[in-house]
Amino acid sequence: MISELRRDPTSGAWVAIASARSRRPSDFRIIHGEQKTGTCPFCYGSEHMTPPEVFALGRKIEAPNAEGWQVRVVPNKFPAFSLDYEGSVDIESHTDGQDGLYVSIPAVGIHEVVVESPEHDSTFGEHSEDQMEDILTAIVTRFRALREDDRLKYLQAFKNWGRQGGASLSHSHCQLIAVPIVPREIQVELDHARQHKDRTGKCLYCQTVEEEIEGRERVLEESEHFLAFCPYASKFPYETWIVPKRHNEAFEEISRDELADLATMLHQVVRTFELAFDDVPYNIVWHTAPWKGDFGAYYHWHLELLPRLATIAGFELGTGYYINPTAPEVAAAALRESMPGHAEG
Amino acid sequence: MISELRRDPTSGAWVAIASARSRRPSDFRIIHGEQKTGTCPFCYGSEHMTPPEVFALGRKIEAPNAEGWQVRVVPNKFPAFSLDYEGSVDIESHTDGQDGLYVSIPAVGIHEVVVESPEHDSTFGEHSEDQMEDILTAIVTRFRALREDDRLKYLQAFKNWGRQGGASLSHSHCQLIAVPIVPREIQVELDHARQHKDRTGKCLYCQTVEEEIEGRERVLEESEHFLAFCPYASKFPYETWIVPKRHNEAFEEISRDELADLATMLHQVVRTFELAFDDVPYNIVWHTAPWKGDFGAYYHWHLELLPRLATIAGFELGTGYYINPTAPEVAAAALRESMPGHAEG
Repeated sequence: MISELRRDPTSGAWVAIASARSRRPSDFRIIHGEQKTGTCPFCYGSEHMTPPEVFALGRKIEAPNAEGWQVRVVPNKFPAFSLDYEGSVDIESHTDGQDGLYVSIPAVGIHEVVVESPEHDSTFGEHSEDQMEDILTAIVTRFRALREDDRLKYLQAFKNWGRQGGASLSHSHCQLIAVPIVPREIQVELDHARQHKDRTGKCLYCQTVEEEIEGRERVLEESEHFLAFCPYASKFPYETWIVPKRHNEAFEEISRDELADLATMLHQVVRTFELAFDDVPYNIVWHTAPWKGDFGAYYHWHLELLPRLATIAGFELGTGYYINPTAPEVAAAALRESMPGHAEG
Repeated sequence: MISELRRDPTSGAWVAIASARSRRPSDFRIIHGEQKTGTCPFCYGSEHMTPPEVFALGRKIEAPNAEGWQVRVVPNKFPAFSLDYEGSVDIESHTDGQDGLYVSIPAVGIHEVVVESPEHDSTFGEHSEDQMEDILTAIVTRFRALREDDRLKYLQAFKNWGRQGGASLSHSHCQLIAVPIVPREIQVELDHARQHKDRTGKCLYCQTVEEEIEGRERVLEESEHFLAFCPYASKFPYETWIVPKRHNEAFEEISRDELADLATMLHQVVRTFELAFDDVPYNIVWHTAPWKGDFGAYYHWHLELLPRLATIAGFELGTGYYINPTAPEVAAAALRESMPGHAEG
């Protein structure tokens, strides 16, 4: 049965009630933040442990679900979202008679896992640059395929790393969750970017890239096509954004050159974090335009790397605001010192 | 020097850059989620280890900062917010010339700790009901005192419990952070409550209480003045809200009878969580009206107990939406079975 998407009447936020993952109190005793052990479903020889793959790169011969792949994309075995529903996901056709208190729609969507490499112990920063390019190619290929489905409004791509980053399996992987509604955080960004454009005539992100290159104190690295920097209002200590220099609203419109450049940049940045910190947990979150609508005039896709060194707790959950103990100027300076190839002075 | 509040131009969210807590990469190695050990600053005999108290209950004689207290409120030793600033906190007087990219105001506010009990090892659910009443009395007293300061717009009261709940000290305590801007999450709730009132003529929260009492399947406990239930769109597994039956926008307007009733209810609910789970991390978050403005017609204060059994990760950070593996109906049924005094069978 498909999961439910319920709308919180007090905030408008949507929650996926994922019944396939239902848990009683006693079940939490064993998962309590620990990563699963046992045979890894993402290693060579375990291909039968996952649902059949939807995409793979690197095999010399055409043999789906066999060994030999370099990157493999498979449906999540316990998906929070599924396409297994016929019919409308319009909110209007699913409201109750109780003044909008209890609104739910079917959790139509997809939930896929991008297995980054056959190497069980290779971290994001330990992959080769070619491997990073293959990973990004797999992700962009899924973006282009999934945007054809009219019921899907947004694809959230992300990577969870480390226990405190929310990774339940230690074999390095990214995730793709396509949803039938535009996420609240993306709507907030769209609104702010549009207002900035209306007020100033400029793209908020293009202008930020220019100002950061000019100021330099928050810059971590600049390449031909991208800028990596710790943003002015970093929510998390050592938060780092990677923003393309070319104005474009959608990640899936990245060029081949840009993709190769991003692979190098992302590899370098994550490697820097791995060298600066002792086993840093983090999330990498894609921010890109929704699939229906015209956002090209003002929105600008980017990646956010969010180290999870501080806990999101009562203040953050209550207010939506963050307390960050490390100014981004301090963070950027410290990270620059940890960059591979940095000469100790 | 006072911390900075910086505004994220892409989302409008504010971040407190708390320089007094500045941390380089190597500092995170030791705090990486572990609770501090050593002499506890919240025990009898350690009163000199905290800044001088601003409120205390329970001493037989008037002797500030001596032993003998039952509840003690002290300024945070490393406050993210401080009143140590003369002058305006208007945003307009602090904008730069860069089209609003870099806006910062002084982090004017207060940051206090409510030490709940002299007993180092007593959990929230192990305190006596009298103790719970004293804790709530201390909090409401601070609400009433701090709302007199014109520069403060909102007081966020909360409790962090357990490592994954963000508690860095194990001696049970609550925290109070007063801020010079209305938090984003509260503004979202105000907007939704106002819209619901405009559309239906009803208070969103009053109506929810009525519907939940009628339906019962998500109800955990009902008392004379409060209802405890797992909300329809619970973001977290086993999330539980405590909502007053009497319509009122502000926690600090709670009556003496209601406060005693809330002490009993909160004690019972937290005790239930302690019995149902093995050492559950959680946050308790107060939701109440801002201090400037007229929200009485539509807003309704309440408490949210948010168990931290699932990790906030890439999907949640990217979208602002949550995946909850436990339907609130299942959660409420399981919690009812764990309630103190529940007869098995």
